[in-house]
Amino acid sequence: MTIAQDVTSQITRLRQHVADLHRELPRNALVVWTAGNVSARVPDADLLVIKPSGVGYDELSADNMVVADLDGNLVDGAYKPSSDTAAHAYVYRHMPHIGGVVHTHSTYATAWSARGEAIPCVLTAMADEFGGEIPVGPFALIGDDSIGRGIVETLSGHRSPAVLMRSHGVFTIGRSARDAVKAAVMCEDVARTVHIARQLGTPLPIEEHHIDALYARYQNVYGQSQPA
Amino acid sequence: MTIAQDVTSQITRLRQHVADLHRELPRNALVVWTAGNVSARVPDADLLVIKPSGVGYDELSADNMVVADLDGNLVDGAYKPSSDTAAHAYVYRHMPHIGGVVHTHSTYATAWSARGEAIPCVLTAMADEFGGEIPVGPFALIGDDSIGRGIVETLSGHRSPAVLMRSHGVFTIGRSARDAVKAAVMCEDVARTVHIARQLGTPLPIEEHHIDALYARYQNVYGQSQPA
Amino acid sequence: MTIAQDVTSQITRLRQHVADLHRELPRNALVVWTAGNVSARVPDADLLVIKPSGVGYDELSADNMVVADLDGNLVDGAYKPSSDTAAHAYVYRHMPHIGGVVHTHSTYATAWSARGEAIPCVLTAMADEFGGEIPVGPFALIGDDSIGRGIVETLSGHRSPAVLMRSHGVFTIGRSARDAVKAAVMCEDVARTVHIARQLGTPLPIEEHHIDALYARYQNVYGQSQPA
Amino acid sequence: MTIAQDVTSQITRLRQHVADLHRELPRNALVVWTAGNVSARVPDADLLVIKPSGVGYDELSADNMVVADLDGNLVDGAYKPSSDTAAHAYVYRHMPHIGGVVHTHSTYATAWSARGEAIPCVLTAMADEFGGEIPVGPFALIGDDSIGRGIVETLSGHRSPAVLMRSHGVFTIGRSARDAVKAAVMCEDVARTVHIARQLGTPLPIEEHHIDALYARYQNVYGQSQPA
Repeated sequence: MTIAQDVTSQITRLRQHVADLHRELPRNALVVWTAGNVSARVPDADLLVIKPSGVGYDELSADNMVVADLDGNLVDGAYKPSSDTAAHAYVYRHMPHIGGVVHTHSTYATAWSARGEAIPCVLTAMADEFGGEIPVGPFALIGDDSIGRGIVETLSGHRSPAVLMRSHGVFTIGRSARDAVKAAVMCEDVARTVHIARQLGTPLPIEEHHIDALYARYQNVYGQSQPA
Repeated sequence: MTIAQDVTSQITRLRQHVADLHRELPRNALVVWTAGNVSARVPDADLLVIKPSGVGYDELSADNMVVADLDGNLVDGAYKPSSDTAAHAYVYRHMPHIGGVVHTHSTYATAWSARGEAIPCVLTAMADEFGGEIPVGPFALIGDDSIGRGIVETLSGHRSPAVLMRSHGVFTIGRSARDAVKAAVMCEDVARTVHIARQLGTPLPIEEHHIDALYARYQNVYGQSQPA
Repeated sequence: MTIAQDVTSQITRLRQHVADLHRELPRNALVVWTAGNVSARVPDADLLVIKPSGVGYDELSADNMVVADLDGNLVDGAYKPSSDTAAHAYVYRHMPHIGGVVHTHSTYATAWSARGEAIPCVLTAMADEFGGEIPVGPFALIGDDSIGRGIVETLSGHRSPAVLMRSHGVFTIGRSARDAVKAAVMCEDVARTVHIARQLGTPLPIEEHHIDALYARYQNVYGQSQPA
Repeated sequence: MTIAQDVTSQITRLRQHVADLHRELPRNALVVWTAGNVSARVPDADLLVIKPSGVGYDELSADNMVVADLDGNLVDGAYKPSSDTAAHAYVYRHMPHIGGVVHTHSTYATAWSARGEAIPCVLTAMADEFGGEIPVGPFALIGDDSIGRGIVETLSGHRSPAVLMRSHGVFTIGRSARDAVKAAVMCEDVARTVHIARQLGTPLPIEEHHIDALYARYQNVYGQSQPA
């Protein structure tokens, strides 16, 4: 079966890719211990590749990554999938253009989420990447579809690839897993910078049409024209 | 004597394990210089394995770990045990289910302790790991049982595996030394995030029954079903 | 053609030098992901060497550096030049004594820029390196000469080699690219220290004639008498 | 000449030792670029070993350390000594029991110095190492004995091995260079923790007799009984 073979080779590639991308989380100080995870959608299949639950970042490899279906059930792997798998799976089910999801409790972004406050767009780098404020999602308990639904409802029709889930942490999405990791890194960076700016006064606003112009340019012009 | 031989092989294993776990303290920025220590109870013996006093983290190895009895007296080792040994020993004497103890002066947790303020439970990750607030213990001088007694009195019957000893620092406990290290890492992480959240306003409360639900799930479902 | 050959060997040397200097940006925590760049003027030529756009710091090498002319057009290289190339080029066109330019979004400096506030000179190390306050430049959109013009207008006749571009980040200049990198490192260091001093009160002023004396000494006496 | 030979071998040993100790400065995030230095007194000689001026921490080795006399003049070495040599030399001339001096602009300690505020003793670790508050020294310009005199006048008869020189940074002293480095590390650690404690309220005081008891114990009991 040709399709099955294609999918198998995609899974083999994505196991390594997702394991590698996890290294960016501790490297960018977005996580401590085992609290954070990256997943990728398997192209042309209702499957995702994700981190095993409760395993440290140093121990991650292609071998211990887990394959789950889009209901979050284990399909392949020696370990239980991340306890956040249901939320990742919900996003893939309801946002077909999304290829990657990242979850962290990164310090500054989580601090904004603990106050239930959106991060205002007062930096040009934030206009570039997020196209406006980073919004807050609802308080949602783990265990059913609440978190996934909160992510999808908050981000649908929104420019921002990041949502601050109330009292919890950050979820980011992207066309690829690498894009979602980049959004997680940038989200913490602007959460920190805007926090620090606010500590000693009020950041100056950026006019809405300037935000629009920066966002449009960045989405179309920045970087090399290479496959993601 | 079979038991003695078993104990000897346990000590050999724990010397290496405790030396290795100490690496997590500088790695997670919980300590500077030599100020922080990990101990493990030796199963089936009234003994503990702990860091030598005033030795740097780079120099720690199985060889220079110290074995003490549960009154804190040196039993085996070429070095003096940590000056916090009496506090660790007191915990093992009075909490038989505890297999590991960690002490640090990690920055944010110690800052809460300097104000004598408990850390309120306003993050889902804090509900998971601590099941509520992280409490403050009494001011206690080193040199007798005051610190040990303060730890045991504060944590007995409390969900939190961490106590903020007033004007001093953090002690964490766990079924294993690794669990106690994890609690020390998570304690600093939530101490920092809640501090930062509070700098610009008031974190939103999490309802008590949600904290209970998160705590129950995390203690039973999270991670792989493996020996600790 | 002798001159052309000289220029070619300068470019070969500067490709390596500029790639190496980029390592100082993540090492000093001035950047995340790909957001920051260093350039050097090619001596005796209307050319500059700069970072490729959207490429990570780990992947930078002499080979993927880009050569552009002083209008920001690609002259040599397999990659698109940094999207900030026009700003760098503008500086070289209008400040002939400048041999290096650095751009970052380093956290504390960018936080000052987000409030549109100059950093007051309240540290002797700041008097040494900046000779007074670090000034704020205008809000300027990427895409034309606005950023370059803002840098040049703010820094012309000013002692400071650093400008805080409003709501954006930092640009630093130097006789050499290494000097500009040093200014970027020192700018973030003093931005952070003065921020933290201000959090709990008002830093004490340094008298103007003391600032002058410190600046004069540092520019003439400090360091080894070696080629930069 | 036996004495001269002894001194030569001491200098050889101290060149390596002082170069090695400098690694602790970036490792503990006490310095950026080249701004910070360690020196050691040469036993039985009116000499000191110190960092060369303006050389980066990665490039330091026994070979490029500088030997100066206690007036700060170059005695041996291929490089100019640190521009802070006069201050180190003044300390050795006036405090015969001191064997090591360290200078840094570490962030939090320098922030206290910028406000001209002593760090109050509100942590047991601070009572241990500093025996009370960390005092502020005068504003002093580089270039004559002002800085050295400010250090000696502030620390003479004081328990603290650290002084916050106003608007400038920290100097620490110790019986050995290693002790002075430890004091520099601990000074920044408590400066940071007390700062953070103060951000959200008022740290609780520690009674004077408790500070005295902690200081007495720590100076006499802590660590291994080994040569420094």
